Amino acid sequence: MSNNSNDTIFIGKKPLMTYVTSTIVQLATKPSVTIKARGLTTSTAIDVSQIVLKKTKPAFEISNVSINSESLVSTDGRNRDVSAIEITIARKNS
Amino acid sequence: MSNNSNDTIFIGKKPLMTYVTSTIVQLATKPSVTIKARGLTTSTAIDVSQIVLKKTKPAFEISNVSINSESLVSTDGRNRDVSAIEITIARKNS
Repeated sequence: MSNNSNDTIFIGKKPLMTYVTSTIVQLATKPSVTIKARGLTTSTAIDVSQIVLKKTKPAFEISNVSINSESLVSTDGRNRDVSAIEITIARKNS
Repeated sequence: MSNNSNDTIFIGKKPLMTYVTSTIVQLATKPSVTIKARGLTTSTAIDVSQIVLKKTKPAFEISNVSINSESLVSTDGRNRDVSAIEITIARKNS
């Protein structure tokens, strides 16, 4: 992580609106925020980004979406590939 | 849908590998294939794209990822916003 960790929101098991609020708070002071998620929480990440855009409309937009897979060692010691998504929300140039 | 429907794969409730196989079959004859999914299946769409890339390595790459939300009328008659993802896989320019 070369970036300041404050501009990245990792999606976990908390209620969806927790992440929406954190993202909006970060966007108040940063030019862009990246939402990251892995595995089944990737769909939550997309939901969070859409709700943030709707609530802050029309100030922000999705500047980049990237998907990749990360190799993790699971509890049984085997390698597992897990899909991940990164969604960057940035202030619109007006 | 202005495109030929054959170059789009909609992710549903079938086993994951069904969609992987369909995508690879389509890529054999088309320059690009778009994988679409809504709601909870969005994470499956990302998995499918990553498995296709891994199996066909290094012939294809992800050319575009876009996310949006679609408004649907649910069974109780209310409007619900559902997150959706579109992943386009295209042949690499070599």
